[in-house]
Amino acid sequence: MNGAQALIRTLVDSGVDVCFTNPGTSEMHFVAALDDVPEMRGILGLFEGVVTAAADGYGRMAGKPAATLLHLGPGLGNGLANLHNARRAHTPIVNIVGDHATYHKQYDAPLESDIDSIASAVSGWVHRSMSPDDVATDAARSVVAASEGPGQVATLILPADVCWLESPGPVAPLDPLQPVNADEQLLAALADVLRSDLSVTLFIGGRVLTEAGLRAAHRVAAATGSKLLCETFPPRLARGAGIPAVDRLAYLAEFAEMQLDGTQHMILADAASPVSFFAYPDKASVLVPDGCGVTDISAGGVDPVAALERLAELLDATAQEVAVAAPSRPARPTGELTSESMAAAIGALLPEHCIIVDESNTSGLFISGATGGCPAHDLLTLTGGAIGIGIPLAVGAAVAAPDRPVLCVEADGSAMYTLQGLWTQVREGLNITTVICNNGSYAVLNMELNRVGADAAGPKAKAMLDISGPDLDFVALATGMGVPATRATTADEFVAQLEAALATPGPVLIEAMVPPLSL
Amino acid sequence: MNGAQALIRTLVDSGVDVCFTNPGTSEMHFVAALDDVPEMRGILGLFEGVVTAAADGYGRMAGKPAATLLHLGPGLGNGLANLHNARRAHTPIVNIVGDHATYHKQYDAPLESDIDSIASAVSGWVHRSMSPDDVATDAARSVVAASEGPGQVATLILPADVCWLESPGPVAPLDPLQPVNADEQLLAALADVLRSDLSVTLFIGGRVLTEAGLRAAHRVAAATGSKLLCETFPPRLARGAGIPAVDRLAYLAEFAEMQLDGTQHMILADAASPVSFFAYPDKASVLVPDGCGVTDISAGGVDPVAALERLAELLDATAQEVAVAAPSRPARPTGELTSESMAAAIGALLPEHCIIVDESNTSGLFISGATGGCPAHDLLTLTGGAIGIGIPLAVGAAVAAPDRPVLCVEADGSAMYTLQGLWTQVREGLNITTVICNNGSYAVLNMELNRVGADAAGPKAKAMLDISGPDLDFVALATGMGVPATRATTADEFVAQLEAALATPGPVLIEAMVPPLSL
Repeated sequence: MNGAQALIRTLVDSGVDVCFTNPGTSEMHFVAALDDVPEMRGILGLFEGVVTAAADGYGRMAGKPAATLLHLGPGLGNGLANLHNARRAHTPIVNIVGDHATYHKQYDAPLESDIDSIASAVSGWVHRSMSPDDVATDAARSVVAASEGPGQVATLILPADVCWLESPGPVAPLDPLQPVNADEQLLAALADVLRSDLSVTLFIGGRVLTEAGLRAAHRVAAATGSKLLCETFPPRLARGAGIPAVDRLAYLAEFAEMQLDGTQHMILADAASPVSFFAYPDKASVLVPDGCGVTDISAGGVDPVAALERLAELLDATAQEVAVAAPSRPARPTGELTSESMAAAIGALLPEHCIIVDESNTSGLFISGATGGCPAHDLLTLTGGAIGIGIPLAVGAAVAAPDRPVLCVEADGSAMYTLQGLWTQVREGLNITTVICNNGSYAVLNMELNRVGADAAGPKAKAMLDISGPDLDFVALATGMGVPATRATTADEFVAQLEAALATPGPVLIEAMVPPLSL
Repeated sequence: MNGAQALIRTLVDSGVDVCFTNPGTSEMHFVAALDDVPEMRGILGLFEGVVTAAADGYGRMAGKPAATLLHLGPGLGNGLANLHNARRAHTPIVNIVGDHATYHKQYDAPLESDIDSIASAVSGWVHRSMSPDDVATDAARSVVAASEGPGQVATLILPADVCWLESPGPVAPLDPLQPVNADEQLLAALADVLRSDLSVTLFIGGRVLTEAGLRAAHRVAAATGSKLLCETFPPRLARGAGIPAVDRLAYLAEFAEMQLDGTQHMILADAASPVSFFAYPDKASVLVPDGCGVTDISAGGVDPVAALERLAELLDATAQEVAVAAPSRPARPTGELTSESMAAAIGALLPEHCIIVDESNTSGLFISGATGGCPAHDLLTLTGGAIGIGIPLAVGAAVAAPDRPVLCVEADGSAMYTLQGLWTQVREGLNITTVICNNGSYAVLNMELNRVGADAAGPKAKAMLDISGPDLDFVALATGMGVPATRATTADEFVAQLEAALATPGPVLIEAMVPPLSL
């Protein structure tokens, strides 16, 4: 048994049985070994940005890591932006980067580069496996590392000879790290704060955004009259009828400041202390009000849901009634196709247990409002701001949850980053409906151009934000990768096409001709 | 005048007047400032891998840097693979990476990442501009740094507030670094070696591959009976009728070893000492024969063409006759479309002064042979092995040389990495003919799978190298980005379509249905 075979067997035994990949020569022994471990599913992406976002989508939905397999530094580079998003989502990923044979690195062959430096920017754990004697143990360690805390990217650098040389075989899975219980004194003090006259905001994210986590957070908030908000871009948010609803912190700092105005103490649960997404001249970076204390109950490896549940106990709130979203849907829209009518159509038709992948940016402004009373669903968002996540994130979500429909609502500019993901949707027969919001523009940047104070922008500047000329034809682009596609120019067309797409197994794409919002 | 305006004015005054970009919010003041400096041309790419390869193609043809403008760490990541190729090509690039405002970085906003570490993997020079007082000087320094030695990627990290704050204005260009003359004693010793009975190989690359450089190298070789070879993947090679021809070192190590067999001394001129592209079990990494001495005449900033010319003087070879390629073209092929007939058609039709961008991988095996006697042209290749360079490299070459036709011959798998470059070809009205060699396969990896000794590959392994199912339809994909496209399934169709495409100004794409070679 060679190193690659031992590695893959160990990954499977440790629960990692999907590998998204775009391999090269240095990974050929790994690829050959896929046939020796039948339980490992290999899924090809035509670009590494597809591979890494698919691993992210898989990890968010499966709650355990997929593996990637990337080709040296350039392959890692191509996948880096979506690993950045995965890092911000705290998604567990075993990120395997092939490298030259150990003895070949010194010769600076054309594909040689500093993989370690590149990987360090997105990984919570980086390790280079140096021997076939160690590679199985390294694989087992990488799985544990990926699941550390809320989850992280664990990068295992894999030299070619470590794969092809004879190895001692697989190793047993290592014990996962156990979550820590929150400090009782801290929780008791927070209970006092919550019972006091102070205006408290519970700011939640990550693992709290399951139905159970939301119930725990709502109990605490309802019992104490405190405010509840969730992070702006959640990795995975349970929502819809029957689930306690939570407002997301606004993207625009002005609105976020209004949401947080008056907060005197903030309790963080698996969420970072809120800051402005970007800096703007003469605007604040920190969104926490002046003088407001901040306590993080999930610091130090604490399970945030357990901490909130314990806090509810301390507050005698375990039987606290929690309001849930009532069932409701917008009427099917008719007339013009706009961001608003597109959202209404989605709300009118969203199937039960759907996974919504939302990278619709400005065009999607009304989707959240239109779907809050839809049947229970999960929402996956762009966590790290690196556009180009949606289409491949949907791939990974669909692989992890094959019985659930996936609806990916995608902005045109972002779609063009990783459009290749459509091909993998066809190849794997994934049940994904993609809606491309075609407004011919990096619309969010038109807004930002004004917001940064560069409002006297001339024609050259505006041209850099305009992606019409030539117009992108997403029906043709999808067809070129084998995805059946239609174009909707009215709300009625969009409703009919969306209904048909959701009733069709396998991938379908709808190009929604939605004019840009005036923001 | 704000920092962005001073920066752009300084770049233009230093000779950098093209900026390939995909900007974001942190770059909005730079974008706004484009209108204040009319001489700076801004060219939008729909993905950063397009931006960086275009800057590479521009630098190779213009002999001076273009600027890029990328959006923080993720934008740099998306452009990293083609910056890797540019690093291997020694292309001068002023690589500008926008970042959060200096005071905003500490808050770890969602798009925060370690740009410096990522940039270090591809850059010969990395500098973070920390003040609007310094940014113009930093810009002038970046231009000089980009042109140091044979050329390199100079990364300037540009915080948003350094752009928007008031600055003291532009600065004058800095003096470029002067090349060093080769050591006379070294050259005299090498002349002795060349005159001796030792079997000498001159191994040339980079700046030597101009017509003047090739003549100098050929004079030395012809006067001394030594062998002349050039690097496997030259950044830019002058070739065709009337130009001294040079064989490229083979990609496959077995063949390269045959070319170098018997060499007792090797003289390097702007080329790295040859090593195998990858390691293979039981095969050598180093291609230089055992006991063969190696001398690099271009080390330490030496101008390699000047050094070769001086060496010719020392050998009394300045009047040495040099053989040049005779004019010849293959006949127009007919019958089946194969790699061979595709190459013959290109040879039969190649226009004068054409720039060939070759990322055809296995399908292009016969192009070099079929075009050696064509009218003089330049050949640009994949220098760093990171696939996905061709389509955007052609963009940059066409921007740098608007009067020359560009022919990009592109493998299907590689094309799917940066296909978005087609859109920029339309937007900028560039005279580029793209030939996609569609064989439905990562054919080079099928060969490598056998070569690494993983020859018992099963169906799962083979599926990872197969990119049919679904078939890619490049006519539809090109049409989706506004490029007129046709499909050729016979040699006759290919000849007719290529002739028409070359006669058409602006971009055209031909999908050549070429079966995979049996390698």
